[in-house]
Amino acid sequence: MSKLLAVGTVAFDAIETPFGKTAKILGGSGTFVGLAASQFGVETGVVSVVGGDFPQSYLEMMNAKGVDTTGIEIIKEGKTFFWSGKYHNDMNSRDTLITELNVLEHFSPVVPEAFKAAEIVMLGNLHPLTQASVLDQMAVTPKLTVLDTMNFWMDIALDDLHDVLKRVDVITINDEEARQLSGEYSLVNAAKKIHKMGPKYVVIKKGEHGALLFNEGKMFYAPALPLAEVFDPTGAGDTFAGGFCGYLAKTEDVSFNNMKNAIIYGSNLASFCVEKFGTSRMESLTSDEVKNRLQAFKELTQFDIEIS
Amino acid sequence: MSKLLAVGTVAFDAIETPFGKTAKILGGSGTFVGLAASQFGVETGVVSVVGGDFPQSYLEMMNAKGVDTTGIEIIKEGKTFFWSGKYHNDMNSRDTLITELNVLEHFSPVVPEAFKAAEIVMLGNLHPLTQASVLDQMAVTPKLTVLDTMNFWMDIALDDLHDVLKRVDVITINDEEARQLSGEYSLVNAAKKIHKMGPKYVVIKKGEHGALLFNEGKMFYAPALPLAEVFDPTGAGDTFAGGFCGYLAKTEDVSFNNMKNAIIYGSNLASFCVEKFGTSRMESLTSDEVKNRLQAFKELTQFDIEIS
Repeated sequence: MSKLLAVGTVAFDAIETPFGKTAKILGGSGTFVGLAASQFGVETGVVSVVGGDFPQSYLEMMNAKGVDTTGIEIIKEGKTFFWSGKYHNDMNSRDTLITELNVLEHFSPVVPEAFKAAEIVMLGNLHPLTQASVLDQMAVTPKLTVLDTMNFWMDIALDDLHDVLKRVDVITINDEEARQLSGEYSLVNAAKKIHKMGPKYVVIKKGEHGALLFNEGKMFYAPALPLAEVFDPTGAGDTFAGGFCGYLAKTEDVSFNNMKNAIIYGSNLASFCVEKFGTSRMESLTSDEVKNRLQAFKELTQFDIEIS
Repeated sequence: MSKLLAVGTVAFDAIETPFGKTAKILGGSGTFVGLAASQFGVETGVVSVVGGDFPQSYLEMMNAKGVDTTGIEIIKEGKTFFWSGKYHNDMNSRDTLITELNVLEHFSPVVPEAFKAAEIVMLGNLHPLTQASVLDQMAVTPKLTVLDTMNFWMDIALDDLHDVLKRVDVITINDEEARQLSGEYSLVNAAKKIHKMGPKYVVIKKGEHGALLFNEGKMFYAPALPLAEVFDPTGAGDTFAGGFCGYLAKTEDVSFNNMKNAIIYGSNLASFCVEKFGTSRMESLTSDEVKNRLQAFKELTQFDIEIS
């Protein structure tokens, strides 16, 4: 069992969807990655920062799930990062209503000693220089480094992004971001160009349309499980990434073939995440539920044509 | 080996894509369905209508592929249906530049005697009353009737569409049309409602995002093969449907499990169709090419998680 280090946000979210509206609830990429990875019993350390307003009970919930929170710095006089958004009826697009960076503005991640040799590192969607500073702190080169990013960093810090991309193995981005980063419309061609920037593996997240994994000519596709209702998509992408990294950490096998399984696990966990607001579904999720839904993924995708 | 009866258009297309522009070339849903089904050596009869301007050589090409064209009425004094369209850079949206119905305006399909007992019937995208008139002519109830339709018929002939839907087993529509027909945004819920209208099987085509097959609670998903270049999407949906029907006709097995394979075959053939303008790629396609790409579909989708 490998250790997983996950750097990302731990935050308050306030979410409005056609199904309802929340007060400030627990959110953040680091939170969702940690909760997803905890499904595999992997030792996961989350590195982040929160303010004095962050409830101790949230940290305790994460600890109870097996998430190590010693890397979550608490700035007593500061306020926790806060994001508020409203989803449109199609659940695929949303408006950001509020973004208060607060303590995140001067976030300088410090990797705890216990995770400086983590075999798998997940660099959440942060400034590329912040992501690079995490790699600088590692005592040994990780077996696998996964980086998440977004169009915002391509717009304001492209050179820094290119620098850190040279140091990572896997990039996870959505289809529009892959097109922006590569200048290619075709995702096949986009992946080719992104390989040349560094990452040998390119994971393209397409939301309800699933996810594609590219590895220098090889491809794998995992659908999103079609659901009767998507209640709240917040955190689905991070849960996907956490499931991906968590499975690889558990199995200690970072081959392309095993990444196929990891992508399926990521999609599987993400399909639960969207069933309730915020982290609540991931908090209550059991391993039996995960297993049953894996069977649904098999039935959804597996066929038996004999090629004669 | 079952017989396949395919009713649809046989037409001239003039297509513009970012890759180039064609003069009037061979097109039409019946044409693409027939060419796709011919890959399986299935006896396929196409029922359609063309004008005196339709080249004999096109009919001969279809005959050479094993497509029976005795059901294609030739109205000497009339002109062949003509469609012209221009695709946008994303290849997912297009503008129709010209639609000349011509002989199609008064099309009254006549099913040839040799196909009145065809086991599989594919009702192409035509007026629902025209589709119904084909079923009225069948000497025996087909083993499987597949119907394709579009938003246009939902707008102007919804009652007629509902009437014919009661008589078919499979409907193929795209995601937006499924939403329009059912009034449900979620495709899972849309399929449930459409089942109640008649079709036990609902195939939802999502273009570059693949296709979903629903059968009263059961689901199967086939991705579109990610391609470096989509040259011309015209006919891809009809080729998909022709591959689906052709495979079912060849294997004489219309179970849900075999429909999974049929969906994969449909996606496989459609991935070739888009590589060149019009029918040209389907005309040159060999069975070895189809087999090789089936292997690519397996690698793209198959994984081996043991559920313990």
